[in-house]
Amino acid sequence: MPELFNVLPPAEAYALFLRHFRPEPCSETVETTDALDRVTAQSILSPSDLPSFTRATMDGYSVRATDTFGASEGAPAYLKVAGEVPMGATDPVGVGVSDAAVAYTGGMLGRGADAVVMVEHTQQVDATTIEVVRPVAPGENCVQVGEDIRRGEELLPAGHRLRPQDIGGLMALGITTVDVSRRPVVGIMSSGDEVIPPDRAPELGQIRDINSYTCKALVERAGGEPRLLGIAPDRREAMEELARAGLGQADVLVLSAGSSVSSRDLTAEVIISLGKPGILLHGISIHPGKPTILALAGRKPVFGLPGNPVSAMVLFELIVAPTIKRLLGQADPDAYSNVQARLTRRVASAPGREDYVQARLETRAGELRAEPVFGKSNLIFTMVKASGMIHVPLDRSGIEAGEMAEIRLF
Amino acid sequence: MPELFNVLPPAEAYALFLRHFRPEPCSETVETTDALDRVTAQSILSPSDLPSFTRATMDGYSVRATDTFGASEGAPAYLKVAGEVPMGATDPVGVGVSDAAVAYTGGMLGRGADAVVMVEHTQQVDATTIEVVRPVAPGENCVQVGEDIRRGEELLPAGHRLRPQDIGGLMALGITTVDVSRRPVVGIMSSGDEVIPPDRAPELGQIRDINSYTCKALVERAGGEPRLLGIAPDRREAMEELARAGLGQADVLVLSAGSSVSSRDLTAEVIISLGKPGILLHGISIHPGKPTILALAGRKPVFGLPGNPVSAMVLFELIVAPTIKRLLGQADPDAYSNVQARLTRRVASAPGREDYVQARLETRAGELRAEPVFGKSNLIFTMVKASGMIHVPLDRSGIEAGEMAEIRLF
Repeated sequence: MPELFNVLPPAEAYALFLRHFRPEPCSETVETTDALDRVTAQSILSPSDLPSFTRATMDGYSVRATDTFGASEGAPAYLKVAGEVPMGATDPVGVGVSDAAVAYTGGMLGRGADAVVMVEHTQQVDATTIEVVRPVAPGENCVQVGEDIRRGEELLPAGHRLRPQDIGGLMALGITTVDVSRRPVVGIMSSGDEVIPPDRAPELGQIRDINSYTCKALVERAGGEPRLLGIAPDRREAMEELARAGLGQADVLVLSAGSSVSSRDLTAEVIISLGKPGILLHGISIHPGKPTILALAGRKPVFGLPGNPVSAMVLFELIVAPTIKRLLGQADPDAYSNVQARLTRRVASAPGREDYVQARLETRAGELRAEPVFGKSNLIFTMVKASGMIHVPLDRSGIEAGEMAEIRLF
Repeated sequence: MPELFNVLPPAEAYALFLRHFRPEPCSETVETTDALDRVTAQSILSPSDLPSFTRATMDGYSVRATDTFGASEGAPAYLKVAGEVPMGATDPVGVGVSDAAVAYTGGMLGRGADAVVMVEHTQQVDATTIEVVRPVAPGENCVQVGEDIRRGEELLPAGHRLRPQDIGGLMALGITTVDVSRRPVVGIMSSGDEVIPPDRAPELGQIRDINSYTCKALVERAGGEPRLLGIAPDRREAMEELARAGLGQADVLVLSAGSSVSSRDLTAEVIISLGKPGILLHGISIHPGKPTILALAGRKPVFGLPGNPVSAMVLFELIVAPTIKRLLGQADPDAYSNVQARLTRRVASAPGREDYVQARLETRAGELRAEPVFGKSNLIFTMVKASGMIHVPLDRSGIEAGEMAEIRLF
């Protein structure tokens, strides 16, 4: 029986893959309002100053600041109310020496005014006169032209995943369409004579396909566009046909197949048949997930994930998701959510192997605790019961109860 | 000028709202494969045992464990190979006393077998005989029937937001459709004579609508279905008409309006006109975001958010998003992502007020640091430059540089 060759630690395995992988993100233009979670295709510069006019941040009066210098309760400054600047007015009243104009939060100042006196610091003397009892500095209670962002300033870098405030910032500048990376299409294929579609009732010895559906959801999470190819039987021709057709319409191909040696060999043969350079690495020193294949068919990544659904998910998170993010041109393709938590029980590992152990998180006495989820590591419901995975680094033989550990969230 | 009444701290303000709010989630049935991030409408029990047959976790031979007891390198057990159980076989070969059947990882055992001997612990003697050099216990190298999940066991609770593994778990059991909460429709309306649609070029004194678009994206994030109603001018009749029409087709109404006192008064009047019980609270002791209105028109939540886009986002996160999650029946509507980080500079606050200060996060010397983002708190680009908000609790007058603080992520 052939053994796995080139077994490398996860980081080295992926680094080896990346030395051969040349992602070429494509861009497309979408409406900014529909661009949540899309990734910017290039750096976006501000086409104008924001705000485009000086705005009051308080209700009160716009004034020339010098007219208020020295004003106090005992010696107020008397100003003439020249009028008001209503919200949305496009031709503001002029504010000359010793003039004031009624100003509203968010509104414009009178022409010639350079500061706003809060209404609380004024007294109405008569219909057209106010007392100002505190001085204001130039610019006080105002947002200056370009104070939010200046024309030509970088608004967003390339490779940035758009959040609600980014969409707001684009709209504020009239950028109603935005160039984003096209979502890479990820073909997903399961194989195995025992695997049946979930809508069928399994006979003895048959199991329903899980990996097509967890992978589909994980592709969506990563920002890709999943395409389910279906289930191939354990025959080389049938697998090759499905894989080849799938790869033709996709940017990435993900196969999950059984973990028996014969099934692994078959998957490897099928991947080799898809084209050069072919298999870059077969086997990663990780648990679960060792029998994983990293390959390229031309420029397209092809991943052979283990059939075990837990392994498939772990490897997807570590290898496939960062690859999708690279195809999106995302600036931080390897970022992930994690927390530090105290283990409630020991988790064992083997030195020279990275382990991921499902864990339930809970806060006890104000501290985050990670409770390892018992059960064999290949059971899907250990994942369902977990909210993250305890990461046991390569050089550790386990992590003791009471120690802090990194929990990778999902 | 009327002052804000009932100014309460954020938690008390929302608690007051919740005493009047009776969310009634509605459910709908969707395809499980399309249900990522949807919320389960009820608890789901497993309709069957998983796995439904005992599965090998190793390549090797299925045997009767008792036949291997005492086996060693020096005194191997000799077993007859009765055949193999191919993947997907539905009628497995029988394994009698002193028999073995070839078994594959993930496959079925021979009928009568109760354990699997790893291939590494066997030697082929001749075409039909093997030596077993180590004993196995009953159940060894197997996953038992129901070991993943048992028939009748709770698969997922009600109010659970579906993750990739949950979808996999449902599919594994043949649950191809799932009852989830209908997405609440959230009507979003901006108002202000100065506010124009983003595709128009502003004249002096005009600003483009930001809040409609940040709120739309935030509604999507929270699991709701946004409906943009447009921009109303600062006239009561026009605002009322738009608000009433919007509320008619929505489960929640979010208005954002200017922060000037007159504009706040107008918003309050419009909200009162929508029906009883009306305004529950007007004003929250929070910065930014004080002039916020929490109201109910019949059973429907109506929120008056400040026009300032930063305030609107903060209040959306604290009040509107948890309300949408309650309408979804989500079990943890108030959960949010946060981290602890060390402040690089002091942030000031006022005791008796909760402050949220935008911050950039970066890891320096292995430690997470939060750098406050400078600029007036009402500038949208302070949000764009930030990855979270420093939370200054009610009873603090600030947080010193070098102190740890909670950062709410967005």
